[in-house]
Amino acid sequence: MEYRFAKRVSRVEDSFIVEIFKYLQDKEMISFSGGFPNPDSFPVEQLKQASNKVFDIDGKSILQYSQTEGYKPLRQFISNRYKQIYNLDIPYEEILITSGSQQALDFIAKSFLDPNDTVIVEEPSYLGALQTFSSYEADFLTVQLNENGIDCESLEQKLIQYNPKLIYIIPNFQNPSGVSYSEETRIRFSEIVKRFNVIVIEDDPYGELYFTESKRTHLKLLLPNQVLLMGSFSKTISPGLRLGWVCAPKAIYKKLFTCKEASDLHSSYLDQRIIHQYLIDNNYDDHLSQIRTLYRSKQKLMLDAISNYFPENVKVFPSSGGMFLWVVLPDTISSLDIFYEAVKEKVVFVPGDPFYVNKQNTNAFRLNFSNASNENIEKGIKRLGHVIKQKLK
Amino acid sequence: MEYRFAKRVSRVEDSFIVEIFKYLQDKEMISFSGGFPNPDSFPVEQLKQASNKVFDIDGKSILQYSQTEGYKPLRQFISNRYKQIYNLDIPYEEILITSGSQQALDFIAKSFLDPNDTVIVEEPSYLGALQTFSSYEADFLTVQLNENGIDCESLEQKLIQYNPKLIYIIPNFQNPSGVSYSEETRIRFSEIVKRFNVIVIEDDPYGELYFTESKRTHLKLLLPNQVLLMGSFSKTISPGLRLGWVCAPKAIYKKLFTCKEASDLHSSYLDQRIIHQYLIDNNYDDHLSQIRTLYRSKQKLMLDAISNYFPENVKVFPSSGGMFLWVVLPDTISSLDIFYEAVKEKVVFVPGDPFYVNKQNTNAFRLNFSNASNENIEKGIKRLGHVIKQKLK
Repeated sequence: MEYRFAKRVSRVEDSFIVEIFKYLQDKEMISFSGGFPNPDSFPVEQLKQASNKVFDIDGKSILQYSQTEGYKPLRQFISNRYKQIYNLDIPYEEILITSGSQQALDFIAKSFLDPNDTVIVEEPSYLGALQTFSSYEADFLTVQLNENGIDCESLEQKLIQYNPKLIYIIPNFQNPSGVSYSEETRIRFSEIVKRFNVIVIEDDPYGELYFTESKRTHLKLLLPNQVLLMGSFSKTISPGLRLGWVCAPKAIYKKLFTCKEASDLHSSYLDQRIIHQYLIDNNYDDHLSQIRTLYRSKQKLMLDAISNYFPENVKVFPSSGGMFLWVVLPDTISSLDIFYEAVKEKVVFVPGDPFYVNKQNTNAFRLNFSNASNENIEKGIKRLGHVIKQKLK
Repeated sequence: MEYRFAKRVSRVEDSFIVEIFKYLQDKEMISFSGGFPNPDSFPVEQLKQASNKVFDIDGKSILQYSQTEGYKPLRQFISNRYKQIYNLDIPYEEILITSGSQQALDFIAKSFLDPNDTVIVEEPSYLGALQTFSSYEADFLTVQLNENGIDCESLEQKLIQYNPKLIYIIPNFQNPSGVSYSEETRIRFSEIVKRFNVIVIEDDPYGELYFTESKRTHLKLLLPNQVLLMGSFSKTISPGLRLGWVCAPKAIYKKLFTCKEASDLHSSYLDQRIIHQYLIDNNYDDHLSQIRTLYRSKQKLMLDAISNYFPENVKVFPSSGGMFLWVVLPDTISSLDIFYEAVKEKVVFVPGDPFYVNKQNTNAFRLNFSNASNENIEKGIKRLGHVIKQKLK
């Protein structure tokens, strides 16, 4: 039987991630590939206690159907935290709980994109976002990322010339580049963007994972009616529970709510209650502080190993937070070639190509430092340095 | 700012369910409205134990990212059960875990429907499905349900005349009508459908909730490559955990997998592990048997009350399972009028209109019997009988 699929899924291809998963079956393999938090950062015992507590105090209710928009006290917690820490006024009524912030992306794409509508993305960009936009038949425009964030001149030209509906950005410790927008870039970005009828998706899964104290003003603060701000507990508590959120102005919130209803009715109520119980019974800031310390030390280890073992003409983008380093090879070298050589030496990472729209044999790649042991960081980077040196000979 | 939404969400309206929720705030209100399982059927203590167990044996792993397709042992459990109980051969590789079977519907719609593609639905049909198909700009054709299931003559004509991509049916204890397809209807249906290039969505959330032993052959058995079979733990264990699944032939599975990846990466891994632990540590069949006994007695109570309090020219569709009764008023009466009168008497149900495609002031309505106390069933049906009698005067 010849199945008659919709156009939107005909052009979706297997992600390279599936390819990488194959190699991860090999237990000898050192992986810098996934965007996985370190399991040592999971508050296992506290979440177990939270689970017991919600079963004990509200056993029948936590197992029943619940509200599409999410558990109100959890939404209020998020709202209060934005206010206290970032001086952001987001009423809880404008916060929709989603199954990871990935799901918020899906709803935003579904709500805004007709086939061949244009989305501006950073270059490079998060591959999961590219996949989601593709699944709604988006056309892409890319704007280069540099060490201070997005290239505002180029952004402005593209906004004038094309008529994009969405701009997708990760201003803090971007995936894959690790880069954060400078305050100047944020202000310049908002001054430009406010002149256009375009929605900004501010994806912020890594904002709490900073290694140095510095100002990172949310674009939501600068462009409240134009920005959809997404957040997540995946990188700070647990990704297995799949809980994120999106903050949206009322008119947009209504559409996203309808998408949520038609998609899965609501996110796991048990998981929402467990996370909420955990948040009110524990010191979340202390917990975050521990993750920062852990990841900061891992990033430093990796940077030190890179400067020991990589050739000097290999560059690393500056980053002071998050989970990734972005390595740029001399431009004659394809990171995909390095990838297949590295696999033989039992070390994997994500080559650049999947982070680009329609570019092949790119010369950069992503290293994850959060989820490898200190020993493996040293060992893996040494192996990788060897592979790169061989290639550069 | 004038937001530029996608066409697909411009035509989505508020569901009537939101309207009903307003009235449920009133604690005096007796509700036969939601499709909620009875909380007394939730295995609270056993799920708590299962939760503790998975935290203890696999604490870090259950909180980490997991596989898009779902937890393999859970998929194997579902596969084995289909084989043992229904003689259905569905390899676990063709079972995708979703966040409730509602989400499977979303992925099927996304994978098959271009704007204005046609979907055949039963009349009446599950309103959540209508909403999901609408959100992908489907056109609908309806085929009447009668006491033995779908009207096969009419179905055949519509398959010949139009070129529908999908047929959406609930063959067991349908929502909202409570009707099950007879064996003859199942066989006739499959003989007709196999001549056409159309996919059948066999939604089966209520199949385990039967009150009499009788044969209910899955259409998946009769049309293995043409049927997408959906199942759910929402009605049998807990809807709060949002776990369902879809069984799909490989080529379709691949598309649904990609939708899952782009939508929320995977369903809550913690919840999958809890449900799986519960299933292997407990006797699921005993548990199901208890739910059947509970719901059978509630259905009988409601039917008895109806025959005591409703006028004789009000008909109830025959049903021997599930959670709903479908009440048909004389055709001069709008169930929406009855609804607003009933609200004044503090009893609510779901009027027929949302279960129809483009029909208004329909003369039928849905009663849920699973989630009301025995006392409220008696009291609520008495009040409702009074309202109907007043209207018929």
